[in-house]
Amino acid sequence: MKNQSDILPKSWTLAELASALDAELKGKPDQVVTGLATLESATRDTLSFLANPAYESQLASTKAGAVIVHPNQADLCPVSALVVGNPYLAYAKASHLFDNAPHVSAEIHTSASVDVGAVVSNTASIGANAVIEAGVTIHDNVIVGPGCVVGANSVVGKYSRLHANVTLYHGVQIGEHCTLHSGAVIGGDGFGFANHDGKWQKIAQLGGVTIGNYVDIGVNTTIDRGAIDDTCIHDYVILDNQIQIAHNVEIGEGTAIAGCTGIAGSTTIGKHCTIAGAVGIAGHLTICDDVHITMRSAITRSITESGSYSSGTAMSKTREWRKNATRFRQLDRIVKRVQALERLGKKS
Amino acid sequence: MKNQSDILPKSWTLAELASALDAELKGKPDQVVTGLATLESATRDTLSFLANPAYESQLASTKAGAVIVHPNQADLCPVSALVVGNPYLAYAKASHLFDNAPHVSAEIHTSASVDVGAVVSNTASIGANAVIEAGVTIHDNVIVGPGCVVGANSVVGKYSRLHANVTLYHGVQIGEHCTLHSGAVIGGDGFGFANHDGKWQKIAQLGGVTIGNYVDIGVNTTIDRGAIDDTCIHDYVILDNQIQIAHNVEIGEGTAIAGCTGIAGSTTIGKHCTIAGAVGIAGHLTICDDVHITMRSAITRSITESGSYSSGTAMSKTREWRKNATRFRQLDRIVKRVQALERLGKKS
Amino acid sequence: MKNQSDILPKSWTLAELASALDAELKGKPDQVVTGLATLESATRDTLSFLANPAYESQLASTKAGAVIVHPNQADLCPVSALVVGNPYLAYAKASHLFDNAPHVSAEIHTSASVDVGAVVSNTASIGANAVIEAGVTIHDNVIVGPGCVVGANSVVGKYSRLHANVTLYHGVQIGEHCTLHSGAVIGGDGFGFANHDGKWQKIAQLGGVTIGNYVDIGVNTTIDRGAIDDTCIHDYVILDNQIQIAHNVEIGEGTAIAGCTGIAGSTTIGKHCTIAGAVGIAGHLTICDDVHITMRSAITRSITESGSYSSGTAMSKTREWRKNATRFRQLDRIVKRVQALERLGKKS
Repeated sequence: MKNQSDILPKSWTLAELASALDAELKGKPDQVVTGLATLESATRDTLSFLANPAYESQLASTKAGAVIVHPNQADLCPVSALVVGNPYLAYAKASHLFDNAPHVSAEIHTSASVDVGAVVSNTASIGANAVIEAGVTIHDNVIVGPGCVVGANSVVGKYSRLHANVTLYHGVQIGEHCTLHSGAVIGGDGFGFANHDGKWQKIAQLGGVTIGNYVDIGVNTTIDRGAIDDTCIHDYVILDNQIQIAHNVEIGEGTAIAGCTGIAGSTTIGKHCTIAGAVGIAGHLTICDDVHITMRSAITRSITESGSYSSGTAMSKTREWRKNATRFRQLDRIVKRVQALERLGKKS
Repeated sequence: MKNQSDILPKSWTLAELASALDAELKGKPDQVVTGLATLESATRDTLSFLANPAYESQLASTKAGAVIVHPNQADLCPVSALVVGNPYLAYAKASHLFDNAPHVSAEIHTSASVDVGAVVSNTASIGANAVIEAGVTIHDNVIVGPGCVVGANSVVGKYSRLHANVTLYHGVQIGEHCTLHSGAVIGGDGFGFANHDGKWQKIAQLGGVTIGNYVDIGVNTTIDRGAIDDTCIHDYVILDNQIQIAHNVEIGEGTAIAGCTGIAGSTTIGKHCTIAGAVGIAGHLTICDDVHITMRSAITRSITESGSYSSGTAMSKTREWRKNATRFRQLDRIVKRVQALERLGKKS
Repeated sequence: MKNQSDILPKSWTLAELASALDAELKGKPDQVVTGLATLESATRDTLSFLANPAYESQLASTKAGAVIVHPNQADLCPVSALVVGNPYLAYAKASHLFDNAPHVSAEIHTSASVDVGAVVSNTASIGANAVIEAGVTIHDNVIVGPGCVVGANSVVGKYSRLHANVTLYHGVQIGEHCTLHSGAVIGGDGFGFANHDGKWQKIAQLGGVTIGNYVDIGVNTTIDRGAIDDTCIHDYVILDNQIQIAHNVEIGEGTAIAGCTGIAGSTTIGKHCTIAGAVGIAGHLTICDDVHITMRSAITRSITESGSYSSGTAMSKTREWRKNATRFRQLDRIVKRVQALERLGKKS
């Protein structure tokens, strides 16, 4: 389906693109492209790219105006080529050249509610019906979207953006160049209670949340404030949608986490980890650097050696699965039967 | 517990109901009922229904004024009966006759912020503190609830309703007769990044989201915009709460998905599928039409044959489970021991 | 990392603390502490506590001004001690003495939209850009945060607090002393549809939601309204973030549920259960009192005996896991091979 938001196409010559992407151009420098497209759906006026080998077969028949390719595929490209060592990274750069997101102007919308005790840079934008509480600092070039609430004494570092309807509680620190997507909530109370005669006594959550620089936080993702010390997300961490991060979790630099994953309280995740979607990580664990966790795994022990970890079972037809799942519940007894057979084998 | 929201009961004669539900009436046409109730809790002034065979035993003792029943059970009904071929569908119709949700009037609330460059039908309702950005089109009879944000250039088709605090990013197309529940966010950036020396370079998400007609989207459900082309949800799709749909997913007509399910990027789901709760579906897969997936399954391969699919293990007492789960981690070695026994058996 | 939200430290003498916590003081009554800290990071001016035996080794070297300890550890404490039978409960009480959350004053913010048909106590606080619809009752000392929407005819009991951007639909009853965190949505439509020739016919959800007293509801947690009767959450229930509770669920007094858990429609959970994170519970089940469910379990049958229940598999390295997961899919056939060997063993 055609891209519906492509309201204002931008136009670039291949010479301009080669320069912007640090690419070698094989083709006419003054040829113009006005958008990005997949190899399959590209037309003469669009730029495409080949980064995933799975799509190599589509290169020969592409109708694109030009294609970003690796030197190894350059000769197979039937149209103009922008040749680079890392086509996926070049595509990432090119995507911003064609970005059609609406411009936001640096002003405080008249319907926004900004406390007199807040400090807002005059290069910042505060959207319609946003609320900025007392003691807040909004640094230069920050965008606070419509309907956002920034709680007392929180700080948003320069060039960071809160999309519409983001909520920061009090005492939350957002670094520079961060993006927080709509519905994200930072600084809610950690889930801390002491049981007293069957009733739960709330533990006041005195810590805050500290988010580093260049952090990306997805839609409806939630990060709780710490019980005593802060919950900490370090620089270059990227978090997808609907992730839950409990109090006093610490996530190391450059770690990426996919949607619907949950991390329980006081767990520390290392640097440069890649955690797939819908993973559950128990509390009070330590995961070392460079760990990969596959989709929907349950992590119940600390990990001290880098590498890939998994749990769960593979999918089957329900009819087959039910038989196997029934057997799983007998597994320990089955192994004992195997042991009995082995003893019998040794005797005979 | 008594229904607390039943502020304005509505009153219908059985003759009126028989006509509205296309039912055969066994009972007095001028008997009146003023609400809906389960067989067990119904009283003389309420209508009930029997759709699930599990509740058949409650029919004989019901105190309802009338019951919607299948012809097979009509003779067992001790009170007035509205006899129809599909009692559950008739109950669905009847539910709207007793709907007590407050009426929303067609007006733009004075506290709403509507950009001068937006087009809003004069039969539409824009709630308190809602924000409508530039280039937006709100068609006839649309309801935009309080606190909603509709991003630039988005379109909401006629008779669609956004409940309170829904967020649409820019360039989102909502069809006609859709319902979006509170906290739903449509059009957030897809989770696209290229890694460069341990730092994640964001890929601008240039596509939009296209939602068909008669689509229902649950509370806090999130649908990301496409990387290049649009993410597409086709007509008659129903999505429960807290579902995560990644960029460039396509969901076919009439498919139903239960709460907490997540679908990773670029996966295509067929028509008329029923996907249970908390399922995880990996990216770049194709699921054919008429597939059923059971609760909490992990789908890691494409499905080309309709039918029911599952993964996971059945529940046990933790004490038993722990033994079996330990054995699971030895399963490959156990099978090798069985093979050794088989070789031994053949020799002897 | 240092607590960033600690804007206004509070100061207490050990004599005051001993009195407030019902503790026996071993140390100087006029010694002053101004905050809470962990044993490891505490300094002379902070109070710490020892509740988890895992941290006992940190007691001897703590630099805290005073420590809350159990009588059994009192002699090992190198600094002033506040001796109590339940140190964790005493810590819970102490946390509120050092709570630094900003004070909210009892007023209706000028930007809030309060319907003339709503009743708001003059001791209540209504935040900036909040929306209170017709027929709502807000009782004494309630705090409704910025951006909240309280739907028609809903009621919020005294001393309850809605943090920023909470949404209540119409006909929702919140008891007294409840806390609802940001992004929580109470009263969305239950996921009820009847299929008619491949199209889903919506069933109007006529019930409401009834929340008892002293209930805590986490960030982005969702509780749907009932189809006919109300969805019910009883007193002293605590719910973490991103929990999904479907229509007509009932949760018994004092039950605690951790983040990302989902409960399908019409299931009844007993009293004093503890349900870990990311658990999935199928619909129409009954779980008795005092049940514990471990992290990420799938509960597909009713539970009639108290105790601990689990499902899933333990984590491994992906390389090992893949082999075992493959074997899982052959499990029924493997057991048949074991049976064949057993028959062979009996013959020989």
